[in-house]
Amino acid sequence: MSDTLPVAVDAMGGDEAPAVIVAGAIAAVRAGIPVILVGDEARIRPLLPRRGAPEIVHTPDVVEMNEGAASAGRRKTNASVRVAMRLVADGRASAVVSCGSTGAALDAAHCDLGVVDGVERPALASILPRSDGGKLVMLDAGANVDCKPEMLANFALLGAAYAESIGVKNPRIGLLANGEEDGKGNVQVRATLPLLRTLPLDVIGNVEPTAAMAGACDVLVCDGFVGNILLKAAEGAVATVQQLLREEIARRPSGIFGAWLLSGAFQRFRKRVEWDAHGGAVLLGAKGIVVAGHGRANAQSVHAAIRVAHDAASHGLEATIERRIQAYVTQH
Amino acid sequence: MSDTLPVAVDAMGGDEAPAVIVAGAIAAVRAGIPVILVGDEARIRPLLPRRGAPEIVHTPDVVEMNEGAASAGRRKTNASVRVAMRLVADGRASAVVSCGSTGAALDAAHCDLGVVDGVERPALASILPRSDGGKLVMLDAGANVDCKPEMLANFALLGAAYAESIGVKNPRIGLLANGEEDGKGNVQVRATLPLLRTLPLDVIGNVEPTAAMAGACDVLVCDGFVGNILLKAAEGAVATVQQLLREEIARRPSGIFGAWLLSGAFQRFRKRVEWDAHGGAVLLGAKGIVVAGHGRANAQSVHAAIRVAHDAASHGLEATIERRIQAYVTQH
Repeated sequence: MSDTLPVAVDAMGGDEAPAVIVAGAIAAVRAGIPVILVGDEARIRPLLPRRGAPEIVHTPDVVEMNEGAASAGRRKTNASVRVAMRLVADGRASAVVSCGSTGAALDAAHCDLGVVDGVERPALASILPRSDGGKLVMLDAGANVDCKPEMLANFALLGAAYAESIGVKNPRIGLLANGEEDGKGNVQVRATLPLLRTLPLDVIGNVEPTAAMAGACDVLVCDGFVGNILLKAAEGAVATVQQLLREEIARRPSGIFGAWLLSGAFQRFRKRVEWDAHGGAVLLGAKGIVVAGHGRANAQSVHAAIRVAHDAASHGLEATIERRIQAYVTQH
Repeated sequence: MSDTLPVAVDAMGGDEAPAVIVAGAIAAVRAGIPVILVGDEARIRPLLPRRGAPEIVHTPDVVEMNEGAASAGRRKTNASVRVAMRLVADGRASAVVSCGSTGAALDAAHCDLGVVDGVERPALASILPRSDGGKLVMLDAGANVDCKPEMLANFALLGAAYAESIGVKNPRIGLLANGEEDGKGNVQVRATLPLLRTLPLDVIGNVEPTAAMAGACDVLVCDGFVGNILLKAAEGAVATVQQLLREEIARRPSGIFGAWLLSGAFQRFRKRVEWDAHGGAVLLGAKGIVVAGHGRANAQSVHAAIRVAHDAASHGLEATIERRIQAYVTQH
C-alpha cells in the first residue's frame, strides 16, 4: 500500500466535532500528511483555509455519541465513520481516524473492512510511555471486554506485529497480571499463560503494570476491560499528580519562580505523555488501519492520531499483521 | 477497643526486614503510637535504642516471601505474622501490621482472627489520593482475584464502613467499569451493578478510574485482580511521570535552578502520594484490624502503615464494619 494515500478522517466524530477535528486535520496537512475529511460539507467547508485545504467527501449522517453505538453503526450505512472505512476498502485512503464512539468505529470496521483471516477478534492497541524511554504496546485497550484465553493469544500476535511495525525488534511479550510468578493472576490469566508460551514469540511471562511501565516488556496483553481500566488509571494518576504538584508549588513562595522556570519542561512533558497515550488506539486485525481517537480530543491529539494512522500505513502494519497471523495459523 | 493498646508489628516480614521494619516502628513510637515488635529477638534487639524501645514478643519462625505463602502461613503456627495476629485475638494488641507476603497475612488472619459474621471474604482496601483533595477507598486491592457478584456487593458494605471510619459521611459507592453508563463493563460488572443497587448505600453506578480519582465517588468497588492492576498502573504512571519530568528539567539550562527551587515541593508531593498509596492496604472483614504493608517498604512507609492501623483501631473500624454488615444481614 502506498504511503502517499491520504488518511480518511471522520470529521463528525468527537465531542467538539467538526471544529477540533478539522483543526487537527489542517495541522496534519501542514505537517505533510495528506487527509480526506468525511462529513457534512456545509459544516466543514467554513472551517477550512482557502489554500491547501484537504479534500472533503460529503455525507450528512453521523453516529451520535449517545446513540446505541453498535446498532447505529450497523444501521446508518452513510454515517461519516462508515464512509471513511469504505474509502480504505476502495483503496482511496490508507487509514481511518475517528474520535467518535469507539463502539461505532469497531462496528463500522467489521462491516466495511472485515477481519484478517485467522484473527478471532480485532483489538485496540494503545501506546504508553515507559520510564526507560521505550514504548509499551498495550492491548486490548477496550474493544473486547470479555475474552477467552484464545483471544488473548491472538492479541499477543497482533501486538507483536504492531510493535515490530513501530521499530521494536523481537518484541518481548508480557501477560498482564498481579504478580510475575507463574500461577499468579485470575482464572483467565492462569489459563492464558500456557497458551501464550506455545506461540512463536518471546513470551516473558506474567508482568505487573509497574514493571511493564518501567520497561520489562514491549507488548502487554490483557482483556479489553482490564486494559481500559489500566489506561484510565494511568491517566487519572497523572492528572492527580499534576494537580497535587501544582498545589505544592503554589504553597511555596519561591515555588512561583521555580514553576515559571519549569513551565517549558512541564509543557514538553505533558505533550510527551498525551501524545502517546491520547493520540489514539490502533485497531489491529481489521483489513485496514483504523485509529480510534479520544472522544474529548483536542486539535493536537487529532493531529497525533492522524500521524499514528499515517505512520502505521507507511510502515506496512497491515502486511506485518497478516504475515504474523498466517505464520501462526499455518504452524497450527 | 481501647486506642492505647499497642499495634503488633511483624518485624520479620518484608524485603529488608527486620531493619526497616524496626526503624519504622521506632519512628511510630516516637510519634506516640505504642508498638509491640514480633520476631526474632536476637536480630531485633541490636536495632533498638536503649531508651523508649518497644516491647518484643519473641518467635523464631518466619514465612519467607518465596515460600508458598498460604500453605506456609497455615503450617507455621509460630511464624511472626501469626503470633502478631494472636496478640490481637487475645486482646493484647489493637491491630497487626505486616509487610511480609500478603497471602500469608491473609491466611494468618483467617486462621487466628476469623471472619466477621456475614462477611463472605475479607478484602484489602487501599486509599488513593484524589485530585480534589479527597480520599478514594478502593477495594479489593488484591486479596481475592476471582469474585462472584455477591462478593463485590459485600465489598461495597465493607468499603462504606471503612470510609465512614476515616471520616467520610454517607460515602458514595462506585463500581469500577470502563464507562459510566449502566450496561458498560464486563459480565461480572453487569451482574454486580443491579445487586449493589439493592444495598442500603448511596450507589452512584459505574465509575471509570479517571472519574474516581477526580472525586466522583468515595468508595470504588472491584475484584482483587483488577484492583491490584489499577493500583500498580497508578503507581507505574506516577513513576514514569517523575522520570520524564526529571529528564525534561535536566534538558533545560534554567531547569536545574528551577528544580532546586522546587525540590521541597517535590519532596512533599512524593510524601503525599506514597503515604496514602503505600502506607498499607487495610484488610476489612476479619475479626481484628490488619494492615498489609508494601513488601518493598521503607521505614517511612512502615511508620505510615502503623499509623493507618492505629487510626483504624482508634476510630472503631471493626465495630463500624460489624454494624454495617449486621444491618444488611438482618434486612435480608
